[in-house]
Amino acid sequence: MDIETGPLFDGIGGTVQSSALFADLLGDGELQALLCDIAILAHYRQFETALVEAKRDLGMTAEKEASEALSHLASFVPDTELLARQTGRDGVPIPGYIERLKQGLNGEAADAVHSGATSQDVMDTALILCLRDVNAVLETRLQNLLGQFDRLAARFGDRTIMGRTRMQAALPISVSHRIGNWRRPLQALLDDWPHMSSQIEWLQLGGPVGDRRGFEGRTDGVAEKMAERLGLIDPGHAWHTDRRPIMAQGEVLSRLSSALGKFGQDVALMAQNGIDEIKLRGTGGSSAMPHKSNPVAAEVLVSLARYNTAQLGLLHTSQIHEQERSGAAWTLEWMVLPTMCLASGRALLLAARLLGQIEMMGNLAK
Amino acid sequence: MDIETGPLFDGIGGTVQSSALFADLLGDGELQALLCDIAILAHYRQFETALVEAKRDLGMTAEKEASEALSHLASFVPDTELLARQTGRDGVPIPGYIERLKQGLNGEAADAVHSGATSQDVMDTALILCLRDVNAVLETRLQNLLGQFDRLAARFGDRTIMGRTRMQAALPISVSHRIGNWRRPLQALLDDWPHMSSQIEWLQLGGPVGDRRGFEGRTDGVAEKMAERLGLIDPGHAWHTDRRPIMAQGEVLSRLSSALGKFGQDVALMAQNGIDEIKLRGTGGSSAMPHKSNPVAAEVLVSLARYNTAQLGLLHTSQIHEQERSGAAWTLEWMVLPTMCLASGRALLLAARLLGQIEMMGNLAK
Amino acid sequence: MDIETGPLFDGIGGTVQSSALFADLLGDGELQALLCDIAILAHYRQFETALVEAKRDLGMTAEKEASEALSHLASFVPDTELLARQTGRDGVPIPGYIERLKQGLNGEAADAVHSGATSQDVMDTALILCLRDVNAVLETRLQNLLGQFDRLAARFGDRTIMGRTRMQAALPISVSHRIGNWRRPLQALLDDWPHMSSQIEWLQLGGPVGDRRGFEGRTDGVAEKMAERLGLIDPGHAWHTDRRPIMAQGEVLSRLSSALGKFGQDVALMAQNGIDEIKLRGTGGSSAMPHKSNPVAAEVLVSLARYNTAQLGLLHTSQIHEQERSGAAWTLEWMVLPTMCLASGRALLLAARLLGQIEMMGNLAK
Amino acid sequence: MDIETGPLFDGIGGTVQSSALFADLLGDGELQALLCDIAILAHYRQFETALVEAKRDLGMTAEKEASEALSHLASFVPDTELLARQTGRDGVPIPGYIERLKQGLNGEAADAVHSGATSQDVMDTALILCLRDVNAVLETRLQNLLGQFDRLAARFGDRTIMGRTRMQAALPISVSHRIGNWRRPLQALLDDWPHMSSQIEWLQLGGPVGDRRGFEGRTDGVAEKMAERLGLIDPGHAWHTDRRPIMAQGEVLSRLSSALGKFGQDVALMAQNGIDEIKLRGTGGSSAMPHKSNPVAAEVLVSLARYNTAQLGLLHTSQIHEQERSGAAWTLEWMVLPTMCLASGRALLLAARLLGQIEMMGNLAK
Repeated sequence: MDIETGPLFDGIGGTVQSSALFADLLGDGELQALLCDIAILAHYRQFETALVEAKRDLGMTAEKEASEALSHLASFVPDTELLARQTGRDGVPIPGYIERLKQGLNGEAADAVHSGATSQDVMDTALILCLRDVNAVLETRLQNLLGQFDRLAARFGDRTIMGRTRMQAALPISVSHRIGNWRRPLQALLDDWPHMSSQIEWLQLGGPVGDRRGFEGRTDGVAEKMAERLGLIDPGHAWHTDRRPIMAQGEVLSRLSSALGKFGQDVALMAQNGIDEIKLRGTGGSSAMPHKSNPVAAEVLVSLARYNTAQLGLLHTSQIHEQERSGAAWTLEWMVLPTMCLASGRALLLAARLLGQIEMMGNLAK
Repeated sequence: MDIETGPLFDGIGGTVQSSALFADLLGDGELQALLCDIAILAHYRQFETALVEAKRDLGMTAEKEASEALSHLASFVPDTELLARQTGRDGVPIPGYIERLKQGLNGEAADAVHSGATSQDVMDTALILCLRDVNAVLETRLQNLLGQFDRLAARFGDRTIMGRTRMQAALPISVSHRIGNWRRPLQALLDDWPHMSSQIEWLQLGGPVGDRRGFEGRTDGVAEKMAERLGLIDPGHAWHTDRRPIMAQGEVLSRLSSALGKFGQDVALMAQNGIDEIKLRGTGGSSAMPHKSNPVAAEVLVSLARYNTAQLGLLHTSQIHEQERSGAAWTLEWMVLPTMCLASGRALLLAARLLGQIEMMGNLAK
Repeated sequence: MDIETGPLFDGIGGTVQSSALFADLLGDGELQALLCDIAILAHYRQFETALVEAKRDLGMTAEKEASEALSHLASFVPDTELLARQTGRDGVPIPGYIERLKQGLNGEAADAVHSGATSQDVMDTALILCLRDVNAVLETRLQNLLGQFDRLAARFGDRTIMGRTRMQAALPISVSHRIGNWRRPLQALLDDWPHMSSQIEWLQLGGPVGDRRGFEGRTDGVAEKMAERLGLIDPGHAWHTDRRPIMAQGEVLSRLSSALGKFGQDVALMAQNGIDEIKLRGTGGSSAMPHKSNPVAAEVLVSLARYNTAQLGLLHTSQIHEQERSGAAWTLEWMVLPTMCLASGRALLLAARLLGQIEMMGNLAK
Repeated sequence: MDIETGPLFDGIGGTVQSSALFADLLGDGELQALLCDIAILAHYRQFETALVEAKRDLGMTAEKEASEALSHLASFVPDTELLARQTGRDGVPIPGYIERLKQGLNGEAADAVHSGATSQDVMDTALILCLRDVNAVLETRLQNLLGQFDRLAARFGDRTIMGRTRMQAALPISVSHRIGNWRRPLQALLDDWPHMSSQIEWLQLGGPVGDRRGFEGRTDGVAEKMAERLGLIDPGHAWHTDRRPIMAQGEVLSRLSSALGKFGQDVALMAQNGIDEIKLRGTGGSSAMPHKSNPVAAEVLVSLARYNTAQLGLLHTSQIHEQERSGAAWTLEWMVLPTMCLASGRALLLAARLLGQIEMMGNLAK
């Protein structure tokens, strides 16, 4: 069966984030492709390839056997049905994946593959590689969005609206002040992007119990080489139980969607009939009331923001990670983090759509 | 394009709950099929069909036009790509669905379809029909699980283990006492199932602003007929903003997964090397340590339980539902409730698997 | 009054719920008195008293020694500083409490006190007695609130406002429809109050490991007598790890505050300048803008509602309760449940205040 | 001491965090003093004093009137009962506070006080001043704790325990590896403390609608002077709706308590009878089983960690902050952030206690 095209890995959905019907409202095809089974399996391959290369570079594996292993890795296609079954039993795909992978190799070439590493090394590094790809998309979208805000401010910024505090009219403000309030936390996230990335893009390599005692005592060297090849940071230790990168990613995703939630909430309030501080076009219709123009994107920004805040709480529980590896805490991360990525990614798409729908802002004389 | 078989509605995943790779660990194919796009669209059809039939039965639509509309409904297949696009704009699939549906009809037959109802009437009723199917599966699984607990108690119940409080040995207890503690909240859920269902299986019918003023003042009659045909309860009013069925479903799902989480947590503790109060077979392997036998199902029960508790909090926010319909609160429900169903469904599957893995319980002399 | 030394602002609290400064906004003095240390200690005494009486009634303790024990209990005053210190060490006040209590008694009279029970029996029963008192207050407030809604509907119900869906004008509705939407989930809670109470007002009695094997095999009899004396239900088993009453209480509290949150959210939206569907008097002022009339109570209803939803998620984790007693899960309940009571109690107070502030509803011609 | 009347147990609280009975388990007297009403009122005074001084320094208020205002501020004592009542109405104490404060002043001296600022400027700055004090305590405790970990490692680090993954024995590890895993995320927090502080210790000054248009167009100058006097950072803009400092504080508090939760969880598992990898002294007793030694501090670390993760989710919702000031989002912060501070503070106290209870670690031959 061909993993790259086979139906098994298309998923059957059952959630709005994976639904085709809701894809343009709550899904994010671009990010889903970076988080789907195919992407994950590709990252397993990247990890194992970098490991063999690192061993070869350090002289721990002979050139010939390394070549053999690398060539096998390059062409290896797992039997996905079998792999899925083993994942159900083992709790992670790695034991099944490695078992099949090694079957095509002998002796030292087989030894070169995976040995010294542990499931969590592969899984966590693969997740980080996914997140790096996801974050690159988010960063680009965020940059573009900030440009849209700038253009909006250029068009309407010198107009005036009523500033409102505690849901009551306070004093008039410029439209640019309101836009600036939307924009500032987003710009701050973008400015902090390199620092944030440095907290997340960590190679995971610790061995079975995370103490880097394997690899004939040369784990630090292996890690350095692998990090170089994968373009990741070697934090100098395993982070099997030290879930800082996971929490950092969650914090950024929630800050991002929350900031967009404020934008959405404000637009929905501004677009109210009777308030009319903003005019939108191309908004949502109703099955019963043809006259309606629903600020759908604005509302859904609020939904996505609230969604992610609760997930962030769950994600922080991953740090309450017992002993050298907690199956319970770790599995929970997998349930939460990809869906948060999709929510923040979708929020950026909807925010861009909403900005494109704005026809007018500012309804008061200066 | 054929909606029943087309690839568009297979979803592309991107979350572990919709991943084929993790399907046997964190997915629930049976429930996904009850919650997927195809199921949802089938329930839209059921709603609209019941509505036409109700109008006909009440003499509000002539027999001939009703027949025409019903026959069209029976064969109608929406253009799914177009529908998905309209959903992105409208925030719900219904306006696009109805627009296409009516295109094949004229005059009174077209009027017979949907008129008087609103998007939320269709969406909420379709959700309830999904939940009814989901709950039937959960109930059967729960019944079977209780049988498994009984057989476990029959095998090992009169053995003895150390009772433990605050993680410390307290006094010896019978194995049947421990099993009884696992079983009791589950039995209570099953005993309460009919009452619970009566709180959930509600027809939604309110019209555009939920006041049942449409249908020529005969909404209550229409609702009664529709409820009868759909096998649902007519609560006597719309519940557009009164999200009791949603909260009730969430409470049950979280109570269910939490009770199974206790079972999983206990088994993981009992299976510890050095404690050895339980022996499992067929458990998870490790890529680095072939000697290991990981209580994977037990751990994942804890993950699923914790997952659902946080989602329940989100679901209760749906009651903070502004005015006659909140797009923000409503959309959030869709993100949360199906994933909770999958988590509880998967928990039941894993609990059954885990019970099947138990080879021995009770390690103390009586 | 000297702020630096005065008792009002001595603020041992440190949280807004226990602050004197915020007492009239976020505290609930009446409920605090039912949940405070004095109330808790009184309930410990009630539990121990009922236990001695039950033993006496069953002939397990002789009349004379029972009298001695009861008389001692009636006058016993613990050394509170010492008790607090021991609580810090033991994780519960009961070991220290019982140790001191027994010091004033000898022989069988000392044996009559507490023996057979465990800390959790006392703590959980005392909590239930607190909750019963709290719920009685909540029920009365809820009844009164429903009366206020009725009077509001009588005054303004036949007026008209714009029905709004997805934050956009939909169709006109009667004010009574809007009020009915606020009222319905609250009335449903009140109607369900007796059923709810029957799920909560449970005696806890299980002995050290919850198996009711103590009391010379007569725990069921002791429990029956105690339940009768305390006016509680004997569920027929211990619920040390079966946290249904805790979850049930949390669900009701969150449903209550969420329903009031909808009311608050709607009022805040209706009171907007430019919408003007409601007029309030006696609302909040601003330090910078004397013209403002802030719908403070309405806003805080939303805060309280959102607060409780997240706490409910935490409370459901209590069911993931390892072995015969989990110190971790149990302690977390204490952090969450009383604050939820205060939030729901305060929400009822604010809702009543807000209803009293409504001067006008309905701004459209019929 | 009479429990019915004594001050220790007068428990105005009603929550365990403000209970005298539970003070040594779940309270944190030192932090409570920094977050209580007295502290808050003192910070209001600090803000208003710095504002008058800034205006004087900039020549906006004459020396004489400034002196008069400052002298009045130094001796001003609000009528606290009245203030509490007004807080209930206004939603913040500031309008009442300023009204009383100005009553003692006339003309320009009265104008010098508060004018140009808004309630949120005072409230947020006072909160930040509280947090700065709280963080100083947390930092010191954290430093000391890291020293305790070092001494623990020095005593037992070269011993051996079984490394455990997924709750099963994996491979032996050194005790120092386990301690290192506990220590690393805590050290990282300490290393990041200055950066974290720079994200939090922000002056709030924006005026009524946050646009810094007041103060005769010199708000930036006023802010610079005030920040200097208060030892805070002027971020160059108001952050009325840009809740980054609030989220940053929450993230740190949750990371801190979660890291300590991992420590607690591990210790509770290590102390199990049958595992015996650690020996504790001075642990908790039981009312029914005198032989027990309960790892109370370890368990409560888990409770506190889980508590804070859910609160963090709530705190991130504060960014979904509508318009120029959201009463609903803002009030919710007050309910959540101080309790998170207390939870993290208590966690540090319990971790220190727990470290002091460790008599032995490491039960395997090297």
